[in-house]
Formats: sequence, C-alpha cells, structure tokens
Amino acid sequence: MGCYYYPSLTGILFERKSLRALFYGLGSDGTVGANKNSIKILGEETDNYVQAYFVYDSKKSGSVTTSHLRFGPEPIRSTYLISSANFIACHQWEFINRVDVLEAAVEGATFLVNSIYKPKNLWDNLPKRVQKQIQEKQLKVYTIDANEVADKAGMGKRINTVMQVCFFALAGVLPREDAIAEIKKSIRKTYSKKGETIVAMNIQAVDKTLENLFQVEWQGKPTDTEALPELPSPVSESAPAFVHDVLGKMMMRQGDLLPVSALPCDGTYPSGTTRWEKRNIAAEIPVWEPDVCVQCGKCVMVCPHAVIRAKVYEPEQLTLAPGTFKHTGTRTQEWKAQGLEFTIQVAPEDCTGCKICVDVCPAKDKSSPNRKAINMAPQPPLREAERDNWEFFLNLPEPDRLHLDVHKIAHQQMQTPLFEFSGACGGCGETPYLKLATQLFGDRMLVANATGCSSIYGGNLPTTPWTHNAEGRGPAWSNSLFEDNAEFGLGFRVALDRHTRQASELLQALRTEIGEELVDALLASPQQDEADIFEQRERVESLKHRLEDILPLADAEKRLQLVNLRSLADYLVKKSVWIIGGDGWAYDIGYGGLDHVLASGRNVNLLVLDTEVYSNTGGQMSKSTPKGAVAKFAEGGKVATKKDLGLIAMTYGTAYVASVAMGARDEHTLRVFLEAESYKGLAKK
Amino acid sequence: MGCYYYPSLTGILFERKSLRALFYGLGSDGTVGANKNSIKILGEETDNYVQAYFVYDSKKSGSVTTSHLRFGPEPIRSTYLISSANFIACHQWEFINRVDVLEAAVEGATFLVNSIYKPKNLWDNLPKRVQKQIQEKQLKVYTIDANEVADKAGMGKRINTVMQVCFFALAGVLPREDAIAEIKKSIRKTYSKKGETIVAMNIQAVDKTLENLFQVEWQGKPTDTEALPELPSPVSESAPAFVHDVLGKMMMRQGDLLPVSALPCDGTYPSGTTRWEKRNIAAEIPVWEPDVCVQCGKCVMVCPHAVIRAKVYEPEQLTLAPGTFKHTGTRTQEWKAQGLEFTIQVAPEDCTGCKICVDVCPAKDKSSPNRKAINMAPQPPLREAERDNWEFFLNLPEPDRLHLDVHKIAHQQMQTPLFEFSGACGGCGETPYLKLATQLFGDRMLVANATGCSSIYGGNLPTTPWTHNAEGRGPAWSNSLFEDNAEFGLGFRVALDRHTRQASELLQALRTEIGEELVDALLASPQQDEADIFEQRERVESLKHRLEDILPLADAEKRLQLVNLRSLADYLVKKSVWIIGGDGWAYDIGYGGLDHVLASGRNVNLLVLDTEVYSNTGGQMSKSTPKGAVAKFAEGGKVATKKDLGLIAMTYGTAYVASVAMGARDEHTLRVFLEAESYKGLAKK
Repeated sequence: MGCYYYPSLTGILFERKSLRALFYGLGSDGTVGANKNSIKILGEETDNYVQAYFVYDSKKSGSVTTSHLRFGPEPIRSTYLISSANFIACHQWEFINRVDVLEAAVEGATFLVNSIYKPKNLWDNLPKRVQKQIQEKQLKVYTIDANEVADKAGMGKRINTVMQVCFFALAGVLPREDAIAEIKKSIRKTYSKKGETIVAMNIQAVDKTLENLFQVEWQGKPTDTEALPELPSPVSESAPAFVHDVLGKMMMRQGDLLPVSALPCDGTYPSGTTRWEKRNIAAEIPVWEPDVCVQCGKCVMVCPHAVIRAKVYEPEQLTLAPGTFKHTGTRTQEWKAQGLEFTIQVAPEDCTGCKICVDVCPAKDKSSPNRKAINMAPQPPLREAERDNWEFFLNLPEPDRLHLDVHKIAHQQMQTPLFEFSGACGGCGETPYLKLATQLFGDRMLVANATGCSSIYGGNLPTTPWTHNAEGRGPAWSNSLFEDNAEFGLGFRVALDRHTRQASELLQALRTEIGEELVDALLASPQQDEADIFEQRERVESLKHRLEDILPLADAEKRLQLVNLRSLADYLVKKSVWIIGGDGWAYDIGYGGLDHVLASGRNVNLLVLDTEVYSNTGGQMSKSTPKGAVAKFAEGGKVATKKDLGLIAMTYGTAYVASVAMGARDEHTLRVFLEAESYKGLAKK
Repeated sequence: MGCYYYPSLTGILFERKSLRALFYGLGSDGTVGANKNSIKILGEETDNYVQAYFVYDSKKSGSVTTSHLRFGPEPIRSTYLISSANFIACHQWEFINRVDVLEAAVEGATFLVNSIYKPKNLWDNLPKRVQKQIQEKQLKVYTIDANEVADKAGMGKRINTVMQVCFFALAGVLPREDAIAEIKKSIRKTYSKKGETIVAMNIQAVDKTLENLFQVEWQGKPTDTEALPELPSPVSESAPAFVHDVLGKMMMRQGDLLPVSALPCDGTYPSGTTRWEKRNIAAEIPVWEPDVCVQCGKCVMVCPHAVIRAKVYEPEQLTLAPGTFKHTGTRTQEWKAQGLEFTIQVAPEDCTGCKICVDVCPAKDKSSPNRKAINMAPQPPLREAERDNWEFFLNLPEPDRLHLDVHKIAHQQMQTPLFEFSGACGGCGETPYLKLATQLFGDRMLVANATGCSSIYGGNLPTTPWTHNAEGRGPAWSNSLFEDNAEFGLGFRVALDRHTRQASELLQALRTEIGEELVDALLASPQQDEADIFEQRERVESLKHRLEDILPLADAEKRLQLVNLRSLADYLVKKSVWIIGGDGWAYDIGYGGLDHVLASGRNVNLLVLDTEVYSNTGGQMSKSTPKGAVAKFAEGGKVATKKDLGLIAMTYGTAYVASVAMGARDEHTLRVFLEAESYKGLAKK
C-alpha cells in the first residue's frame, strides 16, 4: 500500500484521501459500462483500494442508472451506497429537473454535468433548486456538451467515453496523461473486434473531450433566500392518489422513504399506471402525414409501446380539437359512407423513438419517395402540442367493438390496447403480440406470466403496462416462478371452471326465485363472439339487480345461496386464460409444466415469445436457439438443432398449434390469435 | 368415555385397561389390511381410544410386516411402537424361526400362531428359543391352521379374515358375537363389488374359524436350563463380514441396534447382496424337464428375479455334480460339435414362484400336452437338493463372452445377469429389462435411477440386487430424485467424458515415457464390441504396470502426471450410461429434464419402464396412461390420450428411439438394446 502521489489534484482528494463518486446515467447510454471500466483501471493501475456499486431498476432501457465508485489508499469498509459524494456527474441533462442529483454532494464537491448549453448560459438554465444546492454547498461545476462531442466523432448518442475522460480529468485520481493512455488502451481492447473505424471514433472523442470541458463560474450570482424548493413529482396532479403519493415516490427514487403501510397489503397493484410515467426518452418521434396514409393500421399494430393509435369518429367531434390536431376522411368503405373522420395519433412523451412504425409503413409519397405516411422528427419542438393532441385523442369516443370486423387489421386496430407504455426496450419484438391479445381479449383475460423479459416489463414496479378500459375491465396479471408458470396458469383455469360451475349450480337451485327466463338465458349463452359476451354481461348485471331485490326477503338458507351467487356471478361471463413466457421458459425451464398443461387438454392459451435465446439475462442459448447460432453467452455456437416445440405440441393431437411472425404476415398473426382463443381444448369438445 | 364392560375377557385387559397388540404378517398376505379394518371397528363401535401403527420395509412383497394396535379407555399418548405387548400374533409360521416375535411379550400375554401343526404337535416344532420365552413369560398360546381354513373356504392363501376373527375371539375387546357381526358387515362392504361368491367365501371362513382355533397346553413340558439361544442370522456364515454383521442385523430387524460407525460413511454400499438373503417365499418353484426342453432361453430371459439360468459346459465338469443335478446334451449346432452339456438351473430359495417361466415356455411334451419343459412343483421337498444343485451350477465355469453370439437369445442368455433376486413383486414386468441390460453391458454400466418401483427394488436397504461379476465388475448404481434423474445421469456422462479426455491428454503428454505403441493403441481402440473392450482392458492393465515401473524414476512434475493418469486409467475403457425410471418419471415429473437430455444429443441410454401408471404409489394415472384407462387412484378414467413419448423424442431427429415388449417379441427387444447402446448420440457423430 503506502502513500500515493496525486499530481493533478483538484482539491478534495488530498485532504480526504479518498474519492466517493456518484454518476447519474440513462439506461443504455453506456454510463455503467464506462464506470466499470474506470474502476478496473483504478484498481489495476494504482495501489489503491477500489469499490463500485451499480444501481438500476428493471426497466429494460431508458431509466436512471447510478454508479457508486469508491477509491482510496485505505481499505474500503463501506458496504452501502454513497450518501456523501465528493464527485457527482450527471450524464443526462433532463435528470437535473427530476432527480435530486446533488442531494449527496458534500461541501466543495465537484459537479460535472452534460449539457447542451454553453458554459455561460448554463447557470440560468439550472432549476432554482439546483442553483441553491450549488451555492449552499460551494460546489465546483463543470460542463461539457458530450452529445455534440460524441456526435462529431461519429459515435451518435454514445457519450460514455467522453464522460469517462471528463471524470479522469476532474477527479485527478491518476495523472491525466496516464489516465488517457489507459482509456485508449481499454478502447482498443473493447472495440478492436468491431473494426478500426469504431476504435478511431472513440480515440477521436477522447482527444476532443478536454477542449470541450469547461468550468462554470457561478460565484457572485444572486442568492435566493427562500427554502429549498421541493423536487417536482414526476406524476401529474390528476393521477389517482395512490399513483401520485406512492408510485410517484418510487419513480423519484424515494421508495425507501415510504412507510410499509403505504404499500398494498396483499401485493395487488392497480393496473394502467405506466400512463402516468411520461418518460420522454425519445429524441425523435413519428409524425403522421394524413395525405400519404393508406389507413392500413400496420403502424398501430406493430408499435411495441402502444404509442401510435387510430380512431374513426363523427366530424362534429372535431369542434374542440387543438389547432394542430390532424385528421382526414376515412378510406374504409362502410365508414366513408357514414362520413367519418380518421386520425393516427402519437403519444409524444411515451414513445421510445424505436422507428418500427416508420419501417413498417407501406405508404410512400409518390412525388417524394423518402417521405412515408409516418416519418421521424425531433421530439422537443413537438412535445407540447402533441401532448395536447394526445389528450384530445384519448377523449374521442371509443369505437363500438361490436361493429368492428376484427379479422381486418384496419378495423381491429381500432380496439383499445390494454397493454401500453411498458418498460421494454424500444423496438421490443415481444410486446406487439401482448398488445394484440389485450386488444382482442383484454377485457376478460387472465395472464400467468413466466419469469423473463415479459415478467420484467410486465410487472415493473412502480408501474405496470397492463391496463383496463373505461369500464374498468382489463387483464388480471401475475408472475409466479420461471419453472411453474404453465401450472400456475392452469390453476387459473381450474379455479375459474370451478367457480363457473358453482355459479351455474346456484342458478339452477335458485331458478324459481330468480326467474326461469333469466336463468336459462344465462346458462345457454354460447359466448362465442363479442356480441354474445356483451349480452351475457348485461344478463349478469340483471342477475345482480335481481339478487339485490330478492335478498332482503330470503330466509337464512336461501340468503346464503344468494350471497354466494352474488359473489360468483361474474364467473358466468367467459374468461380467457393466457399462459405467457419466453423460450427460456417454454422450451427449457418451464417445459415440464408446459407439457403437462398441453397434455391436460384444458382450455388455456399458451403464448411463447420465442426470441431463440434467453433475452432477459443477456443471451444464453436455449433449446430454441437454432443450430450453429452464436449467442452472447454461448459463443461456441449451438450444436443441437432447434427444438420443434410446435411439432411436439401437435403429437398430442388435441391442441391448436400455430407459429406466427407479425413482421412476416400480420393478417396470419391476427387470424391465429382469434382461432387459438376460440379453440376450447380437449375438455370441452 | 366412561367405563367399558368386557364380557369375555381372556385376562390381562381388565387389569391393564388397555390392549397392546402386535401382529407379524407377510407383505401381501392381508395382515395390514385386516388390522386397519379391526382398528376401525374398535374405534367406531366402542367408546374407547384406538391407535395403530403399521411398519413394513420397502420390499415390494414378501417381507415381514408388523401392525401395532393400541386400544383402551384412556387417551393414548404413546407416540412410539409397542415394545411391551399383551397380545402377539404370528401370521406366518416361518417367522418363528427367524424373527424374535415374542421379544415384546409381557408376562401372561396371549400368543396366537398360524401353523400347519396340530395343537398337540405344535410345542415340539417350536424352536428352543420360543419354547423358553413362552415358559419364562408364562404365555397363553393359541394356534390355528389358517391356511387350511382359508383354502377350504376357497380363499387360497388369503388368511387375513381368519386371523382377524381369531384376534377378536382371543383379545376379547368386543363381545364375540358383536365382533363377528362387525367383521361380516365389513366383509360385505369391502367385497360386495367383487361379487357374492367372494363375500360368501369370507363369511364361510369366519364361521369356520372358531372351531379350528385351539389353545396349546405346554404346562409341564420340560424346561431348558441353558441361556436363551441367539436368533440365528439370516445370512450364511460364508457371507462377507459386512453382509453378515451389518446387513444381516438389518434383515433381522435389528438395524436400530447398529452403531453409526458400522455404516458406510459415504453411503456407498457393496453390490450383490440380495444373494445372501434367501427369502424362501415361493410355495412352488419351477422344475426343469431336460427331455422336453428346446433350449430356447426364453425362461431365462423372462425371469424377473434371475433365478432361472442356463449354462453350457464340458461334460467332465459333471464329475462332482450332486446326484439330482440335471443336464442334457446341448442342441445348439456349434456347441453340439464340441460335445457340450446343457443345464437350466433354478435358485430354489430366491424364486418368488411367479410362474412366468412356465407361461412363456414354448416346449410341450407331445405325449402329455400339459407338461411343459418347465412346470411348477412345491418348494419345501425340493429346497435342500436344489440348493446344492444351485451352488454346483454357480461354480460351473462362466461362458466365454467373446464367443457368444449376443444376437441369439439362446446364446445371449448364457451371459451372467448382474441384477438378481430383487425385492420387486413376484412376476415383475420391469426387472427382466434391467437384467437384460446388465447381461449385455453390466460390466461397464453406470445407472442413474429415477424414484419409483425401480429405485425401491433397486436400492432396497439392507440389500441390493445390482451385482458384479467374478472380476468385480458390475453396474455402479445411484438414485437421486424423482424430478432430476435425467440430469443426474447426464452428469455421469459429462464427468466420464471429461475424465476420459483428461486421461487421453495425459497419455499424449507422457507418450515418450509410456511408449508410443501402447499410447497409440489405447487412443485408437474403437471399443465397438466385447472383443475390443476386452483388449482395451488388457491395454489399461499394461498401462498400469508401466506406470508403476516409471513412477519411482520420475521427477516431481512428471510424477504428478503419472499419478493422475494412474487414477484415470480406467476411464480409457468405454462406459455405458443408463438413465432409468418409470413413466411417472419419464412422462411427468422428470420429463423436463429428460427432454433436456434428449436435446443435448449426448451419448446416454434412456430406459423408460412404462407401466402406464404410477406403480410404486399404488396406481395414479400418468401422461402415459391410455385414454379411458381406469387406475386404482384414477377411477374416473383417463380423459386425454396416451402421450407419445417416442414420437416426441423423434422430433429431435438425433435420438435412437424404440419401443419394446419382451412378451410380444423378445428378439426385437434384444436387438433394440444392442442397437440403442451402440448409438453414440449427436455429440460423437
């Protein structure tokens, strides 16, 4: 060990003999990777002790990450996160407004912020709260436009190398030249496989960084005498109290401050909460061109985040429309006859900017072939206006589900999705299938979700993308274990069937009291399409009213039957059980159970989101991985062929089996979903 | 509660106010069932407290069962087995000689024994030890020839009802008439489904019982002054010490008295120990008729307990044969040319009397069509002579495996089985397949055994039927869990392959020291048939000698390599991995892992003993159960069709798959075993 000489100290380190650095990054911006690299350099190239903790939630990308780096000549015994930091870096400007990045700063600490503002304009663009923290704690403030440096070096949005150089320049834990040499060495090691161009870009970014790093002078700026302003809640005031007060706190990374009593005692969370999150993570969002659009609905169908939606409506609905709200006459024959208007609307603050909608759009402007019916444009200038347009769009009347031809995508995609704004990666290939299922069956769906990507983005505390319609109906969702999901979902079916049977028996037992006609109608309903189900729901409502009427007059024995039937009445409406997971679940870990459910012939729907690799854990091969394929953690290439799960399922001769790919044939996907759900399995045939 | 009046007490109950009754029965003789019934009668028909414990080992049938029944007016707080009994019944005469049935008897207790001897002859046929116990404890002794009563009533060997009536008659816990009425009531309840004939037989047995129950007068018989003789060990003196001293104690039901230090510290037990057990449970055994026999080997192949064996040998071997030893000239062409003799020999004390050999025998005496080449005859008169014949037969030279044509059953069945005398039920349909595998590959076989019947009769402490040949080579066997057996066996393969690879690498590294020629021969051996493997074993022996020669001269580094190679040398001989279990394992509980092993394409053999039902636990339906089939615990009938495991395995396109039934086509079974084992799987192709 011994004493280490810091040749270019910026101050604090020499006194405290240790660095406690905190970095705020955006999931997928490379901050965590760069910090792992930095701590390795420090650990390997100096005689000091190092420690690093990385904290991020389970959002697949686009959420806040924090890196906690400790470094110093004394052994590090702090087995907890950093709460007093002498170096803080904020790698994304927008965090300044919503995360308390300086809370942990000690007096005299160094603060580095990535910003689009020139150094002289930075101060005035900082929120009051941050200004006050800097003044009170006498922080040294540095800034760089890392996005510009990275972009000019040809690295697009990858700012990690730039910010890493700034850290080494400011923290002074290594001689600057040594640090830069080490960074370049590690760049060569990391990227050489990807080609000399990538290496050169990164090296150039390193060289350009220091000339773009500036100290921000703030001494002498006027001081505010008011108390430190509260950090604004990320959730709008119009959100339900639980969302605002409990989930909002979690979104602010203050979940640890919530009392246990604030949490649901049985673990049941309200659905439809992602809509309050407004992550604003897309740099560009799609913009609709009504004149080019053929109104095919493909962009709506394929959007992984349910942020593009279509509606048809009476023209008079437009009276109160915002000025920038776009619309055009519908092209669909029957709606045209009714003179309806058509709109494709984007949710600007929920979009992840994945651009799949643009890729899939088949319509081109003939006079300008690069212009499609959907094109990407920067989000910030559009945000305000499109937010209003989105609000207006949501308040347009929902289409009448009973009159949609669900076999046509353009019609079917008018159905409201009950899975929206998930934490899945932008461009996720799984979520469009979940969304489709919820459009078709969401109002009577129960989902057993295997562990994997879908359980993460599906039940991503604090929010969930599974939502409900205006009547409050939506999927009931739960995740048990990786290895028992099929059985878990089979249990839903068994319980539902038992409840339905009990309700039916009670109906028979109470036939005189309730009335023959209603009882017979309830028991005889085929419930094969939307209309049947709608009517059955009406009947159940009648039944409930009838039960309320009879109850006060009933004797004790009948009363018990009536109360039981009241609690079971909703089971008289058909439910749709979905057992969902990835190939890691279906082909491997949960396959024993999946096979058992297949063999049972019970009326359940099994949806395998087959990515041919364990996606959630970073890419291990599964039995679904094709022969020869190389995965991130299966570099030798798969020896065996892909397991043919569909063929295996067919050996039972009692299952409806299909393989679909929306990108290959979207109509087929839609048809299969409809057919699969309507197939009743062995037990009911 | 209150006081209960016993109108026909035989003595002790009134004083002690409670009955503590102990029953010794033979697994499958109905004793346990009858006692469960008795305790129900006592619990339901009187105001007294009752308790029953039933103790039996995991032998499928034919072992000792004990029933511990407590009854009395006070609450029963004894949470342990009965160690002082005032009523003891021995339902099988032969236990008198090998079980300490009277050890728990208190003074003045009642002792009931089922015996073929007349009451006046009984005393003289009791072993000295039992006589002494009766005299010392002043027991009241009763006897009945229950087998005769049952047989005369048309119930064959089912003595349970007869003995139950005796119990009620002697224990006096219920008025005799009431007890008999209750027994008859319960007979009607239990057997009415099986028809009036069965009910009538049982009722008749009840009525005939009391007139055949006699007290044995022993007062005044001469008293022996010597100490109480030791119970004879069930294991012969010629058995290895561990078998005699440790396993023998367990067989005597004295395992609890063994010190922990007597047990193997790593759970490894010696194999081939059932041969010391000599259970003598067959009333009749097969007798061979050399003049009728066509020498096809089918009886040998099908015998579930490996108690019928065939050998060919030089006539001069007969010089010392016992007088009753049977033999005839061989009928097989090539052996006939050599003038060899042929014998089929039965192990009289290991046979279970299942008669499958007789059923399968295709040879008939043309002059007396009911006479086959094998016929059943009572065991006791044959026991002594056949025991000697069996011993003589075992000592005849083994056939030279290298010159057997293993594709012909008559030849192949000369191979010594390395699975013999298991605790499986008489006539077990699974064990012949295990036996066949051991005949073919047993000397280089590793077995991973799933939980189920096969794990019970396969590792049935204190003894195991898996055995070894004269060179000490035999299957290594282990049972892990129901749900992980396929993975467990795959681990054997992975470890073996790793060891072989390491040994091969060491051979290469030590090429100069060991000698080019030997190294090349060791590495190049194809090991595809018995002859190859024989030669490879010879080479490994040479290698070991060579290593011993080099070792003293080697430097430290080489020495380490040499020692490692010495410990790995045996892995240069091909091993055969067998993953074995029933349909409960393969189709249901362990299927996820089985599928994973199938997909791996590794060189393992999966043997599914498909009984189409969970056999070990009494008959629950599995996914293998055919549509419509009714099992004991699946009375509704199977709704789904039988899962097609073979077809599923074929979907991988990389597995050798076959379905066999010895009873349908024994040659096919043999060929499939040979082909499956020689198929190397995906990895080696």
